[in-house]
Amino acid sequence: MTKPILSLPQYIIDDLVTRALREDLGRGGDITTSALVPSDRIWSGQMVMREDGILAGIDLAKASFLALDPDLSFESVKADGVLCSRGEVVARIQGKATAILSAERTALNFLTHLSGIASLTHKYIEAVKGTKAQICCTRKTHAGLRALEKYAVRAGGGRNHRFGLDDAVLIKDNHIAVAGDIRSAVKSVRSSIGHMVKVEVEVDTLDQLAQLLDMPVDVVLLDNMNPDELQRAVQMVSGQFLTEASGGVTLAHVAAIAASGVDMISIGALTHSAPALDIALDEI
Amino acid sequence: MTKPILSLPQYIIDDLVTRALREDLGRGGDITTSALVPSDRIWSGQMVMREDGILAGIDLAKASFLALDPDLSFESVKADGVLCSRGEVVARIQGKATAILSAERTALNFLTHLSGIASLTHKYIEAVKGTKAQICCTRKTHAGLRALEKYAVRAGGGRNHRFGLDDAVLIKDNHIAVAGDIRSAVKSVRSSIGHMVKVEVEVDTLDQLAQLLDMPVDVVLLDNMNPDELQRAVQMVSGQFLTEASGGVTLAHVAAIAASGVDMISIGALTHSAPALDIALDEI
Amino acid sequence: MTKPILSLPQYIIDDLVTRALREDLGRGGDITTSALVPSDRIWSGQMVMREDGILAGIDLAKASFLALDPDLSFESVKADGVLCSRGEVVARIQGKATAILSAERTALNFLTHLSGIASLTHKYIEAVKGTKAQICCTRKTHAGLRALEKYAVRAGGGRNHRFGLDDAVLIKDNHIAVAGDIRSAVKSVRSSIGHMVKVEVEVDTLDQLAQLLDMPVDVVLLDNMNPDELQRAVQMVSGQFLTEASGGVTLAHVAAIAASGVDMISIGALTHSAPALDIALDEI
Amino acid sequence: MTKPILSLPQYIIDDLVTRALREDLGRGGDITTSALVPSDRIWSGQMVMREDGILAGIDLAKASFLALDPDLSFESVKADGVLCSRGEVVARIQGKATAILSAERTALNFLTHLSGIASLTHKYIEAVKGTKAQICCTRKTHAGLRALEKYAVRAGGGRNHRFGLDDAVLIKDNHIAVAGDIRSAVKSVRSSIGHMVKVEVEVDTLDQLAQLLDMPVDVVLLDNMNPDELQRAVQMVSGQFLTEASGGVTLAHVAAIAASGVDMISIGALTHSAPALDIALDEI
Amino acid sequence: MTKPILSLPQYIIDDLVTRALREDLGRGGDITTSALVPSDRIWSGQMVMREDGILAGIDLAKASFLALDPDLSFESVKADGVLCSRGEVVARIQGKATAILSAERTALNFLTHLSGIASLTHKYIEAVKGTKAQICCTRKTHAGLRALEKYAVRAGGGRNHRFGLDDAVLIKDNHIAVAGDIRSAVKSVRSSIGHMVKVEVEVDTLDQLAQLLDMPVDVVLLDNMNPDELQRAVQMVSGQFLTEASGGVTLAHVAAIAASGVDMISIGALTHSAPALDIALDEI
Amino acid sequence: MTKPILSLPQYIIDDLVTRALREDLGRGGDITTSALVPSDRIWSGQMVMREDGILAGIDLAKASFLALDPDLSFESVKADGVLCSRGEVVARIQGKATAILSAERTALNFLTHLSGIASLTHKYIEAVKGTKAQICCTRKTHAGLRALEKYAVRAGGGRNHRFGLDDAVLIKDNHIAVAGDIRSAVKSVRSSIGHMVKVEVEVDTLDQLAQLLDMPVDVVLLDNMNPDELQRAVQMVSGQFLTEASGGVTLAHVAAIAASGVDMISIGALTHSAPALDIALDEI
Repeated sequence: MTKPILSLPQYIIDDLVTRALREDLGRGGDITTSALVPSDRIWSGQMVMREDGILAGIDLAKASFLALDPDLSFESVKADGVLCSRGEVVARIQGKATAILSAERTALNFLTHLSGIASLTHKYIEAVKGTKAQICCTRKTHAGLRALEKYAVRAGGGRNHRFGLDDAVLIKDNHIAVAGDIRSAVKSVRSSIGHMVKVEVEVDTLDQLAQLLDMPVDVVLLDNMNPDELQRAVQMVSGQFLTEASGGVTLAHVAAIAASGVDMISIGALTHSAPALDIALDEI
Repeated sequence: MTKPILSLPQYIIDDLVTRALREDLGRGGDITTSALVPSDRIWSGQMVMREDGILAGIDLAKASFLALDPDLSFESVKADGVLCSRGEVVARIQGKATAILSAERTALNFLTHLSGIASLTHKYIEAVKGTKAQICCTRKTHAGLRALEKYAVRAGGGRNHRFGLDDAVLIKDNHIAVAGDIRSAVKSVRSSIGHMVKVEVEVDTLDQLAQLLDMPVDVVLLDNMNPDELQRAVQMVSGQFLTEASGGVTLAHVAAIAASGVDMISIGALTHSAPALDIALDEI
Repeated sequence: MTKPILSLPQYIIDDLVTRALREDLGRGGDITTSALVPSDRIWSGQMVMREDGILAGIDLAKASFLALDPDLSFESVKADGVLCSRGEVVARIQGKATAILSAERTALNFLTHLSGIASLTHKYIEAVKGTKAQICCTRKTHAGLRALEKYAVRAGGGRNHRFGLDDAVLIKDNHIAVAGDIRSAVKSVRSSIGHMVKVEVEVDTLDQLAQLLDMPVDVVLLDNMNPDELQRAVQMVSGQFLTEASGGVTLAHVAAIAASGVDMISIGALTHSAPALDIALDEI
Repeated sequence: MTKPILSLPQYIIDDLVTRALREDLGRGGDITTSALVPSDRIWSGQMVMREDGILAGIDLAKASFLALDPDLSFESVKADGVLCSRGEVVARIQGKATAILSAERTALNFLTHLSGIASLTHKYIEAVKGTKAQICCTRKTHAGLRALEKYAVRAGGGRNHRFGLDDAVLIKDNHIAVAGDIRSAVKSVRSSIGHMVKVEVEVDTLDQLAQLLDMPVDVVLLDNMNPDELQRAVQMVSGQFLTEASGGVTLAHVAAIAASGVDMISIGALTHSAPALDIALDEI
Repeated sequence: MTKPILSLPQYIIDDLVTRALREDLGRGGDITTSALVPSDRIWSGQMVMREDGILAGIDLAKASFLALDPDLSFESVKADGVLCSRGEVVARIQGKATAILSAERTALNFLTHLSGIASLTHKYIEAVKGTKAQICCTRKTHAGLRALEKYAVRAGGGRNHRFGLDDAVLIKDNHIAVAGDIRSAVKSVRSSIGHMVKVEVEVDTLDQLAQLLDMPVDVVLLDNMNPDELQRAVQMVSGQFLTEASGGVTLAHVAAIAASGVDMISIGALTHSAPALDIALDEI
Repeated sequence: MTKPILSLPQYIIDDLVTRALREDLGRGGDITTSALVPSDRIWSGQMVMREDGILAGIDLAKASFLALDPDLSFESVKADGVLCSRGEVVARIQGKATAILSAERTALNFLTHLSGIASLTHKYIEAVKGTKAQICCTRKTHAGLRALEKYAVRAGGGRNHRFGLDDAVLIKDNHIAVAGDIRSAVKSVRSSIGHMVKVEVEVDTLDQLAQLLDMPVDVVLLDNMNPDELQRAVQMVSGQFLTEASGGVTLAHVAAIAASGVDMISIGALTHSAPALDIALDEI
């Protein structure tokens, strides 16, 4: 059985669906449908996978249709997080033809985008099977869509990194340069932030890592290290905080990175470059 | 000289930059930078191409930094729409370190996303060089970002299809089914819409196309036809309205489609699946 | 039977009704009603024409009442676009007295304003009966209310001109002055805009018109020409694009303009100066 | 010298100007101007009266242009509230041609609408000259524009009635019916509202008025009474509270109403039916 | 029986509840509950007084829960404005455990804050029992919460002063200094404002008061006067307008102030310094 | 020297200031000032402490004035976080009299509220001096003002607990009841949340605490324990995670709690019941 995915608040779904529909319907509405389709015409259809992949975003598709016809029936056949095959039906829908035709593109845009992210995440997870490494996302997301895209990563089996700049600390080169040295930076941050906030520090070399070993740090980001360096880093850290590999990770070499024993591998491409998954709405 | 790109209204830039910054800075702001970097520290850097491609979104990057430091200096070295090579500097920036570090990810997220779309558009245009075919986008965009993504297509040399459901008519299968037949559908629409609105009709077969030939239509969408069918369609239409090929177009076979003589080729992947272009911010 | 009017998206109705109610109820609500009317008191009434005219905006009136009492019953007796006589009932309503008394003015303000526009449009259409001329609106609307006012023009039997500056091109004097000449302006625009966008050009003289005759233009705006000039312009154009007369059109001389054979007559007064139609809410 | 007009808060101006510009520029901006006018072209013009009337809304026109070009120079030649003659220049403007052409219609829509209201108000005031009657507005305004329209009434020399349902009490027939009798209604309201809120009561007959004479009321609304009844009402009230005449007031008979000695005459047409005043922007 | 309290418009409740829930649930929702509580688990509980006081805000608590579970049942056992004792149940609630756990803090924050204000207001009213003085609030409220806090004052039996700067006039020292003298100030204001707006003038001395006695003023604010001065002021005014005492009023000496015969006593602490009333949600 | 306080994002300041000013100025603006004060009158003043306390919110006061007069000069004499004495000047201000008089109340409402919270926080910190205990806030805040109130706690020297339900985990009784037992709850949460999120668990008894000792927990909340129990709890935990005491903490017994050796003491009253600090604006 699939483990539950931390859910997306309904108001985030509703806000984005509203925003997307208004962007598409504009100031005049769907003039083609309004001119041609009687308002009492009923339409039935199903959403079908056109390629294999992990489903994500079914609640956004549902909300898109319901926003234009609150009485519409939308039956989810597959749940988010499930691997579906080409040809499988993921949802059935029946309601006003005007609403379905006007909301179709908006619903599919959400579903194909999020399923694309979930599916790419899943491929990375498959690639590191057998290691302890977990795959996680970054802040490299599309403007306004971060909550959705992080949800899609979870649906694909991945884990989330911090949501933004305010819910966790990540000390980078530039911060260290200003603070003087890595140890002062950690101390300074610790004295300002709340006790419920984690601290991660980015290091480029094992020398930098050595300076951190006795500091009150939660996670260390090992940036652009090769598998050998990563392995040595993991040994140095020896479990006293989490290790995270990062930097230009691809499907081709993610397994080698994972074999180093790192806890986490963070990958920007999950959210900034996942191609859409092909899903369509067919009349029945 | 590069032809000017139809510009993006400043309020759309400002709205999206604001939205992106709030999504990232959240309720507490950049706690790492706030704890470590004095508010009067000045930082200088430059945005550099990490791979070849067409630049798009420089005004969004600029607006992201200026939103956090109105006194910051941002010098655009390259303009949107220009093909840049790996290693080239596209912008120089100097201002408050706190502002630059806090806005960096937001600025880069816009720039790498839009440049990715422009660069993919450019590849398609290169692929059809020597034909009359123009490359255009669809409504398959990310929620809330359509204006940006359509702008990026223009920056890449492409043309825009309709913006939404309200600014042009596109009669599809489902509409025709309801209206009874394709000719009634066109007549019905024409009698309702304003005189400044264009009408496009989607056809799947040459038989359907034949029914349209004497109708007041502006564009015909030739859906999922092979190059031979497209060529025959173009001959049938014989210039009395524009022809547009559509459906699963890839870089591999776009040239064959263009050779059919169609006026437009519309490609969803331009906006729904373009990978981000790698661009970075380096200290100087 | 009345031809269907391109409908107004429900979210535009809801947004404006919300805005109007908040403007009226303010920070404290309807203090008179709140102090005097028990929340369980039921009230029944009907909306009645106090003068003849075309009804428009019944859905806005309905939404105004429902916003304050979702359980209220609102029965539309007449539909938008119908010519009603003084004394006729257009809607019946029953629900919480507090909601009805508080929403009454908001509901009537929408209904009397939009019916005023529809009724004035209707008068112009009656005046040009027997000619091919259609009556259309302009961008001379009240801030924030353009979608409503363009809908009211449709309800009155008129056609809509472009919605804003982004959905169609209208090249005017100032644009031509900058571009150098009228032909360059048309070419420049055509090379930038999408293939789904129409182009209209404003001309003041027949000489200007002559320069346009072989250009890829969709509509020509004949500005401030007298009936004779209009007639000659129509002959010159000879059906290759649409003709639109414009400029200070009044009920007194619109028939003479229409007799010239122009396709469209655009009239700013439809939206900027239509007096409200008198409609009232009576208890029953 | 003109008495100062209670000013409109700047944020109301900015909100409405923003809203109007977005409605007009839409998702794509002014595509005609963007395609044809270089962004560094400067344009100079002046706003000129095309008919006589009272100016109102000059700050809204100014804000419309400045919203698109913050460096633009806008010189008000005439102030709101001033009677201007046909041909007089009311403002001079110089700035980016793109900004001026794109904002022109928005600026003029505000100015011609508000000047129309101010001018009609002025006509009523002229008509009652020599009496003590003051002309005031009602809540019969356009959705979202009440603050502007009430300002325009002030610019025309009129006075404002309550802004909405929450800043003053107006007890009408329906309220009295629920409360049982007119005296109970007044007492009930007085025991609930704050001590800074005025109470007005609507009466249709002199009998009703008689019941009010010793009550703690601030204003009495004499609804649809003829001049004789009004005169008797004024005598009965004898200055112990203000008197306001209301109901179907026209320019033709307002003088007769005023001659009755009432303090205030409220007129819905000031805001719901004032035709726009013709004002234009000419290049210089 | 309790007199009805002027109600709070539902849209103000909904806006603030939405705002509070978004502030608490943020971008990721209630991650603890989402990870641990199945979405179909039902939970029953009751809201219980942990100390004596006047209840206020029960509709805000209800709206908080319903916002997350529209099918939840919320039964108000006590009404706003009622004095409740420690241990008494004020509401019963049953619905989705996820919704109740996520909304609990938001609901209680509203209820404990508003009940705190109502309870403090009640204490002042008890303290002045037997005099004619009424207790009223000021504009010293928390940003964005004024409508709620003024409602809570009404729930506690107090009266509301003006809502903001726009619904009533209060002439203070600085205004008088600019106008030249107190009498000119009153005249100036009267000639600009509408006839439905009340005028209050602040005086610090009996000499100032003397200048006002024949002026068209509705209320006089007697600022920081001791009980003796207040008594003399009340005698001077002799009922021709209302008297209001103000300035550093405490529970300890409010009775002495009231004994002077003033009509109103305004107290900033009601809204700016009322401690929260302890109310909790217990499972049943 | 005072340690820097994690700053408040400027857009949060601007949003709340805008919201507060609109709440106060309403639909009509400051009618008293508008009627009496010329728009070019300049006014100079200073903000002065009327009692001792810690200053917080000076940037909100500044933003309030600047929002109405962008050219105003505002000089901060004291910084947030500084203990000021009665009579000390905290800021000097010079600008348009209309702006200052209209914004005064809004500015002071922010400043007195936040300084009240900072001052109360400071009192608790003074009370636990000499122990290792840090004082922190809770989620018991005023709707919409949490970012400000948490900032004020920091200004007073306190630390922040989690911001909302989404940035850290706090497992309470109800969560444990659903999960079955405390250990399963911790495991379940850990497998869903990101690696940058901390986990706190609430325990009521030492027995519950014993079950947690080898679990991957970051903080334990010791709810409503007396000093003896707290001391034993601290010994049991022995530094492997942080300890937090909570529940009905008052100034009278906080020292006793701190003496137990806990790391953190969380206090709802800091934000839900801090009385406003008296600060005024005087003309100079």
